[in-house]
This record gives sequence, C-alpha cells and structure tokens, in this order.
Amino acid sequence: MTIAQAITELTQVLGDRLTTSKSDLDLHGQSEAYFPPTPPDAVAYPRSTEEVSQIMRICSAHDCPVVAWGTGTSLEGHALAINGGICVDFTKMDKILRVSPEDMDCTVQPGVTREALNTDLRATGLFFPVDPGANASLGGMTSTRASGTTAVRYGTMRDNVMGLEVVLADGRVIRTGTRARKSSSGYDLTALFTGAEGTLGLITEITLRLRGQPEAISAAVCAFDSTEDAVNAVITTIQMGIPMARIEFLDKASAAVCKAQSGIELAEAPHLLVEFHGSETSTAEDATRFGEVAEEFGGTDFRWSSKPEERSALWEMRHRAYWSTLAAHPGCTGVTTDACVPISQLARAIEDARKLIDDSPVPGYILGHVGDGNYHSLLIIDPNKPEDKAAAKALAKRMSEQALELQGTITGEHGIGMGKLPLMAEQHGDAWSVMGDLKRTLDPQNILNPGKVVQQNG
Amino acid sequence: MTIAQAITELTQVLGDRLTTSKSDLDLHGQSEAYFPPTPPDAVAYPRSTEEVSQIMRICSAHDCPVVAWGTGTSLEGHALAINGGICVDFTKMDKILRVSPEDMDCTVQPGVTREALNTDLRATGLFFPVDPGANASLGGMTSTRASGTTAVRYGTMRDNVMGLEVVLADGRVIRTGTRARKSSSGYDLTALFTGAEGTLGLITEITLRLRGQPEAISAAVCAFDSTEDAVNAVITTIQMGIPMARIEFLDKASAAVCKAQSGIELAEAPHLLVEFHGSETSTAEDATRFGEVAEEFGGTDFRWSSKPEERSALWEMRHRAYWSTLAAHPGCTGVTTDACVPISQLARAIEDARKLIDDSPVPGYILGHVGDGNYHSLLIIDPNKPEDKAAAKALAKRMSEQALELQGTITGEHGIGMGKLPLMAEQHGDAWSVMGDLKRTLDPQNILNPGKVVQQNG
Ligand SMILES: Cc1cc2nc3c(=O)[nH]c(=O)nc-3n(C[C@H](O)[C@H](O)[C@H](O)COP(=O)(O)OP(=O)(O)OC[C@H]3O[C@@H](n4cnc5c(N)ncnc54)[C@H](O)[C@@H]3O)c2cc1C
Ligand SMILES: Cc1cc2nc3c(=O)[nH]c(=O)nc-3n(C[C@H](O)[C@H](O)[C@H](O)COP(=O)(O)OP(=O)(O)OC[C@H]3O[C@@H](n4cnc5c(N)ncnc54)[C@H](O)[C@@H]3O)c2cc1C
Repeated sequence: MTIAQAITELTQVLGDRLTTSKSDLDLHGQSEAYFPPTPPDAVAYPRSTEEVSQIMRICSAHDCPVVAWGTGTSLEGHALAINGGICVDFTKMDKILRVSPEDMDCTVQPGVTREALNTDLRATGLFFPVDPGANASLGGMTSTRASGTTAVRYGTMRDNVMGLEVVLADGRVIRTGTRARKSSSGYDLTALFTGAEGTLGLITEITLRLRGQPEAISAAVCAFDSTEDAVNAVITTIQMGIPMARIEFLDKASAAVCKAQSGIELAEAPHLLVEFHGSETSTAEDATRFGEVAEEFGGTDFRWSSKPEERSALWEMRHRAYWSTLAAHPGCTGVTTDACVPISQLARAIEDARKLIDDSPVPGYILGHVGDGNYHSLLIIDPNKPEDKAAAKALAKRMSEQALELQGTITGEHGIGMGKLPLMAEQHGDAWSVMGDLKRTLDPQNILNPGKVVQQNG
Repeated sequence: MTIAQAITELTQVLGDRLTTSKSDLDLHGQSEAYFPPTPPDAVAYPRSTEEVSQIMRICSAHDCPVVAWGTGTSLEGHALAINGGICVDFTKMDKILRVSPEDMDCTVQPGVTREALNTDLRATGLFFPVDPGANASLGGMTSTRASGTTAVRYGTMRDNVMGLEVVLADGRVIRTGTRARKSSSGYDLTALFTGAEGTLGLITEITLRLRGQPEAISAAVCAFDSTEDAVNAVITTIQMGIPMARIEFLDKASAAVCKAQSGIELAEAPHLLVEFHGSETSTAEDATRFGEVAEEFGGTDFRWSSKPEERSALWEMRHRAYWSTLAAHPGCTGVTTDACVPISQLARAIEDARKLIDDSPVPGYILGHVGDGNYHSLLIIDPNKPEDKAAAKALAKRMSEQALELQGTITGEHGIGMGKLPLMAEQHGDAWSVMGDLKRTLDPQNILNPGKVVQQNG
C-alpha cells in the first residue's frame, strides 16, 4: 500500500510525532458538523517548515493524501480525510516568531491560536482583530478566509494576511507577499493561498497585520420591532460613515436562548449589538450618532456600556450563541448556514429564511454579522428524528441559492469544505473550472485535501 | 502571417474600430517612461464583452499577441506591444453600468476613468477613493493594483475591487467575486486578476466598493528638520490610531520644485501633507492630536485648512509634482522608482536613497505615500547626456534591492511591466516560477501581454 509506505518513511522523519493511535485518529476524524467520522490513516505533528517539506516530499512520492488540521472548528467538514492519508496537525508549530510594534505586524507559525496571539500582544498595545468566536488557529483562519464580528471595521483574513510561507505539494517552500503594506509585484499569491482550505499548499508561516488597541471602547445593545428596522438602521449608520467596530444581529429566537443562557436581560425581539473603537471623544460621538439613527428606526431598550466587564459579558454571550442554542436542544446537532448578500438585500434574505424555517419541521435560529450582509441560521437536528437532517440540509441549500439570486455568496466566511461543494458550479460557473485548473497546476496528483473546494476528479 | 490573418478576421467583427493607422499605432506604442516606442500591429476598440471575447477567440486561433490599453499612464512599459499584435484599447467601454447607493458599490466597464466615475457619483454622496494622481482607467488601475495618496485610509485596488468579469485567453467569459462584502467561496480569482497587468485575461467589468463622502475634511502642510523626524511623526500617528486619509512626504528638493510651480509657500525642508476625513468633531480632534505628535518631532510652519479651494490647491500641487519636476528640467525624461518598505525602515530607505542620488550624476527628487512606507524617487535623464539613463537605471535597481533587503517590495503600486522584470527572481525566488505556472495554465499560448510580469519563455 502506498499510504502504508508513506507512513513508514514519515515515522523515520518524525518518530513518535507520527501516530496511528486510535484515539488520535478518531479525534482527527471528527468535525463540528453533521458529517460522518472519517479518520485519517495517521496523524503527523511537525515542528518546523523543514519537516512539513519532508512530509510533502514523502507523500507526493507515494501519492498519499495530506490534510492539514488547525483546531478542527471549521463547519463544512473541511479537515476530514475523506480519502484517508496523513492528517498534518499544526499544534506543535505554535510559535510567535516576531512582533514588530513599530510596523504593527507579526509573523507566526500556523498553530498559534487567535487568543494565544492576543494574550502575547497585550503588553504591546496592539491586537489582532479578526475574531471568529471559536479560538481557531491562525493557519485554519487563513485557510478558510475567516472573519467574524469585527470584519465590518478591520476586514477579514483576506485583508489582514500580508504574506505567507507555503510548502507546495512537491515539498518546495515558497514565500508570498512582503512586510510592506502594499505591493504590486506580480500575481497575488498570498490571496490565492488564503482561503484555499489546504488544497493548494500547506501554510507554515503567516505574516499578519496588527492594530492599535483602541483607547476607548463603547458597546450597546438595543431592540427593534422588526428585522427590517434593525437592518435599515445598520445601512444608514454605514452610509453616514459612522465607524462601527462590531455590529451583530440576533433574531427573536436567538435573543431568547442568549438571554436564557447568559442571564443578560433581552426583550423578545430582534436585537442589534454594536461596538465602537476610538478615542473617548470619537466613541462618545459615534455612540450618540448611532443612537439617533437607531431611534429613527424604532430602536428601544438601549443599554450602553463602556465598562470592560459589561462589554465582555455581552460579547461572551454573542460568542456562545452557537453553544447556547445547542444547549437549548439537548442531544441535538446543528447545520449552520453562511449566506452573505449585498446589505440592501439582507432584511429580505433574513425574513425569507425565517419563513422557510417556520414552514419546516426543524427549529432554527438566525443571527449574523449584519454590517457585512452575512447571516447564519443554526438549524437543529434531532438524532431521533431521521427526517430532520434531510429537512435541515434542504433548508440550507435553499438559503444558499437565495443568496446567489440576491447577487451574494453561498459562504461569507466558513468556506466550502465538502458541505458547499454541490453549490460551487451554481455560484461560479466557468470560474469553478478555472479553479480546478489552478488546483491541477499546483497539485497535479491531487494529494492536498482531496475532495474539497474543487471537483475530486475534475 | 498569423497576425495579418487575425487582423483580417478582426476587421470583419469590428469594422473601422480596428485600425492600423500610423497615428493610432504610434500613440499606442509609447509609454510614460523611457522605453523605446514599440507600436502594435493594430488597435482594436471593442464596445462590449462579447466583442472582447471574439477578439480573444480570433487571436488565440492565430497565436496573435493581445495587449490591453487603459489610458497608457503606467510607468514600466506595461502596455507596450513588444511582440507586436493587437492593442485592445478600452476607451469605448466607458459605461458606468450600475451604482447602488444603499450597498455603496458600483459596476463599471474598464474604460471608465477614476475622475469620470467620481464626477458621476457626486450627487449620490459617495465616492471612489483610490487616487493615483493620473486620471487612469479603472481597468488599468485594477490591472496594476494601483493605489496612491489615499491608500493609507481606504486601501488599494486590491481592497476595493469586489468582483470582475474577465475574458480568458480562449475567449471564455468568467465572473469572479460577488456583490457581497466578503466571501469564502473558493479560490480568490478576483485577487488573482487584480494586478495581473493583462497577462491572465482581459477585464471587461469591475465591481467596486464605494465610500461615503466625508462630512468634513481638514488638510495641513508642515515642515520638519529631517526625513527621520517626519517619518517618526507618521509612525507615531499611525500607532495612536489617528485615522489619516492621506499622508504624503516631500523631500527638500521636491518641496522646492512644488513651491516654484504652484506658488504655494513651502520652506526649504522636508514636508508632510496630511488630510483627515470624518465628522466636524472627529476631524478637528484628529487634527489636534496630529498637531501634537508633529510638534513633538519638531514639526513647524503648520498650515491647516478646511476650505475646499485651499485643499484642492494643496493636492493639485502634490498630484502635479511629477510634471512640476520634469518642468524644472526642460527636455528631460524621468525614471520613477517605487520601493515600499516596512514603515520603521522608511526613514533609513529615503536617507540612503538621497545619498545614492547625491553621489550620482543625475538629479533626483523624493516623495512618497509615507503612511504605506512607499516612496518614489524621480530621477532625471537628460537626453543630451547618454550616461544619464544608465546611471538612473543603476540607481533605481539599487533602490529596489535595498527595498528587498529591508523586507519590502520592488513596487508598492506601479507594477512590474518590463522595467521591473529583471528583479522578479530576486524578490520572489521559487514563487516567481509558480507565477509562471499560473500564467501557462491560464494562457498556454502566451498571447496575453507577453513579456510582462513572468518570463517570456519561462
Ligand atoms: C462556535 C463556532 C463559531 C464560529 N464562528 C465563526 C465566525 O464567526 N467566523 C468564521 O469565519 N468562522 C467561524 N467558525 C468556523 C471556524 O472557527 C473557522 O472556519 C476557523 O477559521 C477554522 O480554524 P481551525 O483552526 O479550526 O481550522 P480547521 O478546522 O482545523 O481547518 C480548516 C481548513 O483549513 C485547513 N488548514 C488548517 N491549517 C492549515 C495550514 N497550516 N495550511 C493549510 N491549510 C490549513 C484545513 O485543512 C481545513 O481545510 C465558527 C466555528 C464554531 C465552531
Ligand atoms: C504622473 C503620474 C503619477 C502616477 N501616480 C501613481 C500613483 O500615485 N499610484 C499608482 O498606483 N500609480 C501611479 N501612476 C501610474 C499609473 O497611473 C497607474 O499604473 C494606473 O493604474 C495605470 O492605469 P492606465 O489606465 O493608464 O493603464 P495602462 O497604462 O493603459 O495599462 C496598465 C496595465 O494594465 C493592463 N490593462 C489595462 N486595461 C486592462 C483591462 N481592461 N484588462 C486587463 N488588463 C488591462 C495593460 O495591459 C497594462 O499592462 C502614475 C502615473 C503618472 C504618469
């Protein structure tokens, strides 16, 4: 067997950092989503770029699939080794290699998590802003082009990755980007590998843009009569150029579970959660102006806070929304949708999604990064009701298609993995076959995360 | 001849919008830089995507080179038809196809110029922020990944192009990106074609992100004793999170020519030109805080202005710096460098550049988009002194190499064209050969702007 041969050779390189223990395989065969477990044949824990390069040289010599693993929080089965092979777990490549406060950038290994980086940065007055809620690895976040609550102000991983070191399928090591703030030098390889979900190369170093910790932060929560009012308040705020650092939407159902789990008082209504970053003066001004806009659209039950504890409690509630919702349905799992549309279409998209859910047998909760036009619905699957999974998947498909009808995308931030593969042709047309051409160019043997993003035998 | 055959067939499609008149060929054989004229064999003026697709089908059938042309202001011979063939001039594809104020985006044909777009947008309260000074076409700006004075606040073309329609080498038409604010759907083809200088496909539609016209603008000019003081003032301002919309550097020599040509009073010293966008309160606050920082670094001779006429005069002076400098050397041409480095290295880079110029026989002027770490030196070539060109090119090469030593890039915004080709291997190593692989995948016949960005026969 070729995979077996690769494992033998890899063991010579990695020693006990190449494992085939059942517990390790099982752990790396699971995902956050509803996909059946598919363990790899072995798990490798490289410590250096050189070791990753050796892994690729050996695996390409033996046509052995290689699937990268960050923290495994991706939601579309991205990191599942569906063709078997080697799972490369980046946990041991977790060094922060350089922080340059003057240039507000840093270089990290891919196994560094977002929270570990921010803990390390605390004393510098800087922070890394992209915040997907989960304490994901920066390699995984780069590879899914992740974003989250702060993208409306600070952008997504696309905007915050300045350069990469990448090990190619044949083991060659390249560098993309530079430490300069911008570059017009050749094709944008940094962007090509960002969001490629480990199908074009393995990322071994990431140079990230950092931001100054804001001098002042103020946050607020407020209720609206309808989704439309809430979304229109957001559109107006953006148009007025009021710089929001976060602006999150919770529908009535989500507000109810968040309230129940967090103890934070929320009305039975759609809510916006907002945050402003800046100076004392500017955040106060932004807050006032936002308050006026919200009031114009019937916003009520306003609560402002510039106290760190209160703010943390608010965002903790938001970040735990996924788990709070599942906790309200013990024993159930979920399907998470990720439509993203032009913001003028968002109220309509969310209202249609709500109707679809209400007409279906499964419970569903809607929340979203409303400043980006990105909403998630979490659809609940009861394992005792076999019809739920099919119903939830049909609902999710319909919401993706609706996003396309509204000139949006089937995934604002989670990525394709396996779950969204069936919709790629619909979204991209001939451009999907161009993606397949690029994949074949960079990975002619199809050993890098096969079966994801592009067609398996395309 | 294959090119002749292509011209015959193209005439059937385009009629008199395919021309071989000498004046037209000559016009499209010139560039802003020092390259010898190289006229194409014919110039095509398509009116639609369908016509561009037909052009590519015909030209690929006959192995005929195709070079796109926007307004021809690129500075590295980008749009020169060095292998002959068809120049596709996008002037007649100059329609603004859609503006959506609610979503703050628009879709344009590639021949629309930046100024035409902003004139059209005036009544909407929106504007398109990327400003390379020259009134370039949006197709050209996309293809060079242009930026300019406002990138420090609003980003470059990379950050403002949301999606593209592209005609591939074989005539197929694809769409990249969506109208959603972000997407994790597959490989980032938008970024791949942005900055590809027409070597991977012809761009026929561009979806752009727009911004709200700021409620208030304030601008200032101030003098410093040294480059280092000026740059350190900028670094501190950025670290404090004071949001600058523009921050430009002029060295002593540039200040002198700008003063002479514009009549604006400037001391014989390095200067910073700054601008803040926001509300009345926030711009006033930003201005005060910047003033404090500048003073700390010895800034003097401060002049603030929030009057539109005064501001226009200031930026007109900055935008005309290139022409003002050439006007000070009648009959001469110039070589423009475009190094971009981590901002902590900028003072050193500029000071070294100044020394190199002072030790050389050619006069040189330094200015830059200092908030991005990007500086240009304009090196003057006297046609009567044949040694000047070689000296200027050697200087330019040295400055590019220095940018690489400082972990920067050989081009922050102008692109590669032909002028920077000899430095690509040094900047990118094996990543340059990956670029060559991508080029061969998308343009296997090497008919799209051959000889640019990647190796001619790589
Ligand atoms: C409760 C919850 C909330 C979430 N909220 C958000 C959100 O708000 N926004 C958001 O964007 N996402 C969100 N996610 C999804 C998930 O957190 C992100 O997709 C995250 O970026 C995945 O990171 P990871 O380290 O877990 O990657 P993994 O799941 O381990 O891997 C993701 C993909 O990247 C590849 N990969 C990993 N490391 C590398 C590497 N070094 N080189 C090449 N390829 C690599 C893997 O092969 C896989 O294809 C959420 C998930 C959960 C469970
Ligand atoms: C005085 C002066 C100041 C300048 N200042 C700046 C500055 O501050 N910042 C900056 O970034 N640049 C600057 N430039 C350079 C220049 O303005 C930019 O490079 C600009 O983006 C070129 O646009 P264009 O329409 O003139 O493109 P062109 O020169 O016509 O073409 C540029 C490249 O794009 C390709 N191209 C054009 N249209 C298409 C299309 N539709 N599809 C595919 N490929 C296409 C061409 O083949 C060529 O390779 C300056 C130039 C001058 C003369």
